[in-house]
Amino acid sequence: VTHAYMSQLMTSTKAKIIDLSADFRLSEASLFEKHYHQHDSPALLKTIPYGLPELFSDEIKQSQVVANPGCYPTSVILALYPLIKEGLISGSIISDSKSGVTGAGKALKESFLYCEVNNSFSAYGTGVHRHECEMVDVLGCDVFFSPHLLPMNRGILSTMYASTDVKTVKEIDTVYEHYYLDKPFVKLALQSETPTTKFVMGTNDCRIGFRLFPDKRRLVVFSAIDNIVKGASGQAVQCMNIMCGFNETEGLGQIGLYL
Amino acid sequence: VTHAYMSQLMTSTKAKIIDLSADFRLSEASLFEKHYHQHDSPALLKTIPYGLPELFSDEIKQSQVVANPGCYPTSVILALYPLIKEGLISGSIISDSKSGVTGAGKALKESFLYCEVNNSFSAYGTGVHRHECEMVDVLGCDVFFSPHLLPMNRGILSTMYASTDVKTVKEIDTVYEHYYLDKPFVKLALQSETPTTKFVMGTNDCRIGFRLFPDKRRLVVFSAIDNIVKGASGQAVQCMNIMCGFNETEGLGQIGLYL
Amino acid sequence: VTHAYMSQLMTSTKAKIIDLSADFRLSEASLFEKHYHQHDSPALLKTIPYGLPELFSDEIKQSQVVANPGCYPTSVILALYPLIKEGLISGSIISDSKSGVTGAGKALKESFLYCEVNNSFSAYGTGVHRHECEMVDVLGCDVFFSPHLLPMNRGILSTMYASTDVKTVKEIDTVYEHYYLDKPFVKLALQSETPTTKFVMGTNDCRIGFRLFPDKRRLVVFSAIDNIVKGASGQAVQCMNIMCGFNETEGLGQIGLYL
Amino acid sequence: VTHAYMSQLMTSTKAKIIDLSADFRLSEASLFEKHYHQHDSPALLKTIPYGLPELFSDEIKQSQVVANPGCYPTSVILALYPLIKEGLISGSIISDSKSGVTGAGKALKESFLYCEVNNSFSAYGTGVHRHECEMVDVLGCDVFFSPHLLPMNRGILSTMYASTDVKTVKEIDTVYEHYYLDKPFVKLALQSETPTTKFVMGTNDCRIGFRLFPDKRRLVVFSAIDNIVKGASGQAVQCMNIMCGFNETEGLGQIGLYL
Repeated sequence: VTHAYMSQLMTSTKAKIIDLSADFRLSEASLFEKHYHQHDSPALLKTIPYGLPELFSDEIKQSQVVANPGCYPTSVILALYPLIKEGLISGSIISDSKSGVTGAGKALKESFLYCEVNNSFSAYGTGVHRHECEMVDVLGCDVFFSPHLLPMNRGILSTMYASTDVKTVKEIDTVYEHYYLDKPFVKLALQSETPTTKFVMGTNDCRIGFRLFPDKRRLVVFSAIDNIVKGASGQAVQCMNIMCGFNETEGLGQIGLYL
Repeated sequence: VTHAYMSQLMTSTKAKIIDLSADFRLSEASLFEKHYHQHDSPALLKTIPYGLPELFSDEIKQSQVVANPGCYPTSVILALYPLIKEGLISGSIISDSKSGVTGAGKALKESFLYCEVNNSFSAYGTGVHRHECEMVDVLGCDVFFSPHLLPMNRGILSTMYASTDVKTVKEIDTVYEHYYLDKPFVKLALQSETPTTKFVMGTNDCRIGFRLFPDKRRLVVFSAIDNIVKGASGQAVQCMNIMCGFNETEGLGQIGLYL
Repeated sequence: VTHAYMSQLMTSTKAKIIDLSADFRLSEASLFEKHYHQHDSPALLKTIPYGLPELFSDEIKQSQVVANPGCYPTSVILALYPLIKEGLISGSIISDSKSGVTGAGKALKESFLYCEVNNSFSAYGTGVHRHECEMVDVLGCDVFFSPHLLPMNRGILSTMYASTDVKTVKEIDTVYEHYYLDKPFVKLALQSETPTTKFVMGTNDCRIGFRLFPDKRRLVVFSAIDNIVKGASGQAVQCMNIMCGFNETEGLGQIGLYL
Repeated sequence: VTHAYMSQLMTSTKAKIIDLSADFRLSEASLFEKHYHQHDSPALLKTIPYGLPELFSDEIKQSQVVANPGCYPTSVILALYPLIKEGLISGSIISDSKSGVTGAGKALKESFLYCEVNNSFSAYGTGVHRHECEMVDVLGCDVFFSPHLLPMNRGILSTMYASTDVKTVKEIDTVYEHYYLDKPFVKLALQSETPTTKFVMGTNDCRIGFRLFPDKRRLVVFSAIDNIVKGASGQAVQCMNIMCGFNETEGLGQIGLYL
C-alpha cells in the first residue's frame, strides 16, 4: 500500500497497521535515503516504533502503526542489545550471518534455482547489505554485517564476534536473564547448547547462546531464528497481539517440526 | 539451428552433426507431429540414426547426422532393448522413472526454485510425457512412462516392471552380457547390487540391475544414468568419437565423484 | 513391552493400548511367522483391529488394543481399498513407493549418513519388504511392492499402477468421495492436482490423486503422506481419539509447514 | 602406521612419505601436546615440512616426509599468509569457517545422520578446535577460529575478518598476484567474484577473494576449497608430485563438476 493510503487509514479508522516493508524501520529520513530512496513520509518516521516486542513492547502497545523488523536484524539485535546497553561489549562488532533461501522470497532469479543453491555456499552483499544500517540504528553501535546463503529453506544463524572485558560467564547469563527470562519467545541456550536452526524451524523462537574466552577478551554470541516466522510474519502476529491487547503468544504456540 | 541451415551444412561441408533436439529421434513424421508439431524435414527422418551407441553404432559410424537420444529414453531403452529383442519379456511394460532437477535445464520457473524442490517429491506428466513415444518407437513395444522429480541435481533412476516367463537369473544375465559385456559405458550390476544414481554421477555410465520373481512372473529392472552426461552431452561426445573414428571413450574417462 | 506385560495390562486395567510394532498387524500367525518370526500371542491376532481409522473405525472404537499400521501400507491401502472393494481394479497391482529417510528411524548405519543419502536415489528391498504382506493381507489382493529411498527427511509418495475397465474419471471420483468425503484427514486431489509430499509435511493428511487412461486400460493412483505423522504417531493419536471417544482430529489440527 | 614403522621406512628405504595425520603439522612438541597428546617423535617435528605447496615447495621438494595440512588450515593459511607476511593486516584475525559433512569422514555418529544434518546449520568447536593452533603456528599471528557444519557434502568456505590500514584494492591484488599468479591451483577471484564452494567442487583449487572497506579499516577475505581434494588427498598428490619431481598438476587436472 502507498503511504497516502496508510495515512488515510490512520486518520479515518482505528485500524492497527503492521508494515512489513522497510519504510519505517529507521529513525531518520536521511539514513533511509542513504540506503534506500527518497522517503515519502519523513514526519511519520519518529512516531512509528520498531516492532521488536522483546525490547519495545511499551511503544508497540500504544502505537497504531508498527514497523516489522527485518529478518537478519531480528536475529542480531535480540542477541546484542542487552550486552551493549549494559556495557558488556564495546567497539566494533562483526555479525557473520547465514540464511536459508526463503529469505529471498519467490523471486525468479537464476541464483535461486534448485541446482544453483543445492550443494553450494557463498557470501553476498558483504558490508553493503541494507540490513546493516537497521542494526546500527537500533543498537547505537558499530556493526559490520556479512550475510551468506545456505543450501536450505528456512533459518538464520548469526555468529557475532565482540571484544569484551567480562571475566565470567555468570555476568553475561545475568544480563540475558534480566532482559529475557519472562519473554516467551526468547530461549536462552547460553553455555549448555549451541543454537541450531533446526530447533527453531516453524517456531517464533529466537535461541541465544554464547562462548566467552576471557584470556582473549573475545565473546562469540550465536542467535538462531526461523526467518519466515520470528523473522517475518510470526513477529507481525506477535506485534498484533500486543497492539490488540491479546495474549502475546496467541496463534504462535504451534510446536516446531524438528525434521 | 534451423533445418535449412543443417541441410546446407550437410551438402556443402563434411561437418558431422549431432542434434541434441528431439527433431530426428522418431522414425515417422506422423508420430513426431502427434507429440510435437509439424515437421520441417520429414524426408530426413528415415536417414538419421538414433544416437544410442551401445545399440546402433554401425548406423552412427556411417551417418553425417545423428539424433542424440532423450535422457529418460536412454535409461529405459538400454535396460529393456536386449530383453525385448530376445523375447524374455512381453506385454505392457511400466517405467517409473525419477530424475534430478538438471533434467529441466535452467528454466526460470517457480517449480524449479530451490525452496519448491527441496524436501519434496512428486510425479509430473504421467502418461503424457513426450519421451514415452521415443521409447515405444525404438523398442517396438508398449511402454507406459511415469516420470517424477527428485530433490537432487543429477541422476535418473528408472524402475521398470515387466511380466516374464523366464525362470532363472542366468538367462537374463546371459542376454545382458551378450549385448553389453564389451560396451565400456554399460555396467552390469545385475544381482550383486541395486543401481544407485550416486555411482554414475559425473560419468557416462549406465548401470543396469534386476530382480526376478519367477513365482510371480515378475521382472523388475533398474537403470541409473547421469542425465546430463550419458543422458545428454556425454552421449553426444561418445557419438562424435564413433562418427570421427576416435576411440569411443575419448574424453569420457573422467572418474565420477562419489559424493 | 512384552506380550506378557500387554496381556497383564489388558486384564488388570482398562488402559487403551496402541501397538506401534508390527506384531498384531497381520490376520494370521502363519503369515506373520513367514515374514517375521514365531508369534508369542497368536490367539490375540484375530481380536486386535488394524488401526486405519478411515476404514476400520468401528472396530477401533470397540477395541482395547489397536495395531498401528506401517507407514508404506497406510499410503497404499488408503489409496487402493475403495477401488478394490468396489471392483474398479483387478489383477496384480504395482506400488512403486518412495520414502524420506525418517522412515528408517535413527539407526546408526552407514547408509543413512548424510553424505551417503544426499544427492542419491536408489531402490531397496524390492519384492521382499515386510510391508508387502501387510498390504496384501488388508487389501485381499495381489500387490507388488517396490520401495525407494529419497534424499529428504519426511514424506512418502506411492505411485500405484493397476489395470482397469473403468471408462470415466467420474466413476472413480464417486467411489473415493463415497469413502472419504467425510474423513477429515483424506484429501482428494483427484484430477486437479498431483499429490506432492511437501503438501502433507507436518500433517496427518493423506492426499490421493489419479490419472486414468481408458484406451490403455491403465489407472495410476498417487498417495502422499508424512510418514512420521499419518504413517506413525499421528495415526496413533487419531486411533486414541477414537478409542477414547474424543473428536477424531483432537491434537492433530496443526497447520503443516509448506517449506 | 606407527612412528616406529615410519622411522624404519625412512632409514631403510627411499620411500617418500606423506603423513595425512596431524602428528607432524606443528613446529613444537609442546604445542602438539597442549592440543593433542604426548608426542612420540619430537625430534622429527623440526625436520618435516608443512605440506602446503604454494608456500613451502622448496622444503617439500627436499624432504622425505611431508605433513599434509588440515582442511580448514589449508583454506585459511593460503588466504592470509601473503597479507600477513607483507604486513597488510595486523592484530587479531577472525576466521568464520563453514564446512560440508565429508570433513567428518564416515564416523557413525547420530549428528552426521542425514535427518540431523539436512535443513540445519550450527556452529561447533568454537574457539577450541584443534585446527586453530595449526593456523596460528604457520601464520605466526593470532587467529580466532570458529567452524560451522553446512548441510552439503563437500566444500569449505572461510570468511576472514581483519583490520587493515590498506587504502586501495590494488595493494592487495598486487600482493596476491606476487604470491600466486604462477600457482596452478590458486584462483584469484579478488574483486570480480565472491568465491563459491560449487566452483571448486571436485577440483584441487583454492579460490580467494576479498572486499576492502578502507573507511572502516576492515578487510574481509574469502577462501573456498573442496575439503576432500585440496583439503586432503588432492593436496597429498600435489606434494607427491613435487617430492618425486613430477609436474605439480599431474593427476589433478580433472574438471570439477559444476552441479
